[in-house]
Amino acid sequence: MPSPGPGPLSLVPFVSVADMMALVNGIGAERFLVELAAYIEADFRRWHMFEKTPRLATHSKEGVIELMPTSDGVEFGFKFVNGHPLNTRDGRQTVTAFGMLANVRDGYPVLLSEMTILTALRTAATSALAAKYLAPKGSRTMAVIGNGAQCEFQVLAIRALCGIDTVRLYDIDARATEKAAHNLAGSGISVVACASSQEAVEQADIITTCTADKRNATILTDNMIGSGVHINAIGGDCPGKTELHRDILLRSDIFVEYEPQTRGEGEIQQLDPGHAVTELWQVIAGQAAGRRDAGQITIFDSVGFAIEDFSALRCVRDQLARIGQPSKLDLLADPDDPRDLFGMLRRAAQTAGAAE
Amino acid sequence: MPSPGPGPLSLVPFVSVADMMALVNGIGAERFLVELAAYIEADFRRWHMFEKTPRLATHSKEGVIELMPTSDGVEFGFKFVNGHPLNTRDGRQTVTAFGMLANVRDGYPVLLSEMTILTALRTAATSALAAKYLAPKGSRTMAVIGNGAQCEFQVLAIRALCGIDTVRLYDIDARATEKAAHNLAGSGISVVACASSQEAVEQADIITTCTADKRNATILTDNMIGSGVHINAIGGDCPGKTELHRDILLRSDIFVEYEPQTRGEGEIQQLDPGHAVTELWQVIAGQAAGRRDAGQITIFDSVGFAIEDFSALRCVRDQLARIGQPSKLDLLADPDDPRDLFGMLRRAAQTAGAAE
Repeated sequence: MPSPGPGPLSLVPFVSVADMMALVNGIGAERFLVELAAYIEADFRRWHMFEKTPRLATHSKEGVIELMPTSDGVEFGFKFVNGHPLNTRDGRQTVTAFGMLANVRDGYPVLLSEMTILTALRTAATSALAAKYLAPKGSRTMAVIGNGAQCEFQVLAIRALCGIDTVRLYDIDARATEKAAHNLAGSGISVVACASSQEAVEQADIITTCTADKRNATILTDNMIGSGVHINAIGGDCPGKTELHRDILLRSDIFVEYEPQTRGEGEIQQLDPGHAVTELWQVIAGQAAGRRDAGQITIFDSVGFAIEDFSALRCVRDQLARIGQPSKLDLLADPDDPRDLFGMLRRAAQTAGAAE
Repeated sequence: MPSPGPGPLSLVPFVSVADMMALVNGIGAERFLVELAAYIEADFRRWHMFEKTPRLATHSKEGVIELMPTSDGVEFGFKFVNGHPLNTRDGRQTVTAFGMLANVRDGYPVLLSEMTILTALRTAATSALAAKYLAPKGSRTMAVIGNGAQCEFQVLAIRALCGIDTVRLYDIDARATEKAAHNLAGSGISVVACASSQEAVEQADIITTCTADKRNATILTDNMIGSGVHINAIGGDCPGKTELHRDILLRSDIFVEYEPQTRGEGEIQQLDPGHAVTELWQVIAGQAAGRRDAGQITIFDSVGFAIEDFSALRCVRDQLARIGQPSKLDLLADPDDPRDLFGMLRRAAQTAGAAE
């Protein structure tokens, strides 16, 4: 009699939170960020090969739940992710996520992975990639406004790809700044805790805004931004949620991930829909100019796009060998005869009955 | 020092294939189908409360991969599902699936479940629900054309909800019919293996077509269908894939799940986009007529809609107590301080280092 236990086709490799931490720590967070950025860069270079759609978002008064699918024709990937700024009041993450890769050929999942940590890493890697192409040459100092879960990843990624040596931190909650400063101690980066956004951005070549609260829609005002800086605007990422004053946008060259999605979600929702923006992949692929001169203000209006998650899942899949055999989930039914799903169910009942 | 192990918020209940089989067998497949149909019926009655969108489909020459999200404002659910008709050649399922329920309030997943078996069950439960409202009174005989993975579930669900006592089976592969007849032996249903579709539909009150191959676009021709029958057309469910000759559609009253999705995927892709159809929920909620007379031909042009999967996930979640404590996945990062994701990662490295 055929065994009712899971067959080999039914098992999907699974990367838990513990596995992801072991993987990242085994490689080293900074090196992992560099490798991840290389995967994103490679996928941005072959942008035309991907099926692209704005993410599917379900908004509620508390936050948003999103599905972010894409495919390069060989593999299909998607991420489930939420954004709930008030979650931290109950000890929950603002953003949690998981994702999957599947074969396009047969539709079978090949990897299920936690993506809360991976999303933090890929967001930072994408920002660093943008800064690599857009920040002023010889940037030494970065500022981070918003010192929550994304902050340290931003600093390490931008140090790794752009070589900054000083970071200036500000958060409306001083304990968040303290937490980030503590975590960055010993990293070799000089950390300056600041008393205001204004103070934090002074002398900064690269500014990252990564705040979570929708109610603070203007983290940076026009007078705070001098010439010759690059801004990664991370926190403005859904309808009604922005961080930069409109006047800054009007003085800047704006780079986005995928224009049809960013129009509704990014800083540019404050602008006329016809306002010119450049997709970052165009700069990476050499099809559009990045920074043209030292005085220019460049903004990477980042909202997070499905291809970055696809790159991240590819990167994790390729590194899986490093964490040994991952655990596997009994996720897919695998009857001996694929048409005999009902028979598999019935045989499982018989086996269970026989064991009683 | 805080523990780097998974915290309670990071663990998501997981229903594996083995768990699902134990759940369904523990309740009994037929009774489970009845309970599941009740969940679908209840959700169809409150149709207006749901966020609805046609599923997001990625088509390739081999098949399709789909994401099917919906929300009732309290919970969000989605299913990942593929459809690859040629998969059975390699011992793989045509359709595999898994899905998730999450809280809208905080975006946290509350259930991850296999849905290959559950999709087969919910498809059958939905067909039976349609037949309950649309089939001729006193239906005794059903025909099933296509005796693959969906066949036996259709028969049991329709027997449970509509009380048929005879099923007539046909498949282009006689081994599939043999498999289904074998599985239905002892069910108390009289099973007749037929040599053609024509023979199978003779004397049938209810006809289910559930074939998988896109190349056979006309399973039923006009001359085969007399008056006074109900047809569940299950297999025509994506662009270019249909089962019924257009002339049958023109003589019938057509019921669909969600019109904007079915226009592109169902049998009605053969008709003018203005051709009138009725959404099944309207009949269930008493807002539209179902069967008006004994001679009418009714067609449930079923493609599968996200709300049915949402109902199925709700049903499984509510039954979880019956299988004891489900296993839990370490899927969500849960740092002691939700803003300190980086610190959690770093502490995990220190703990791993100390253990060496």
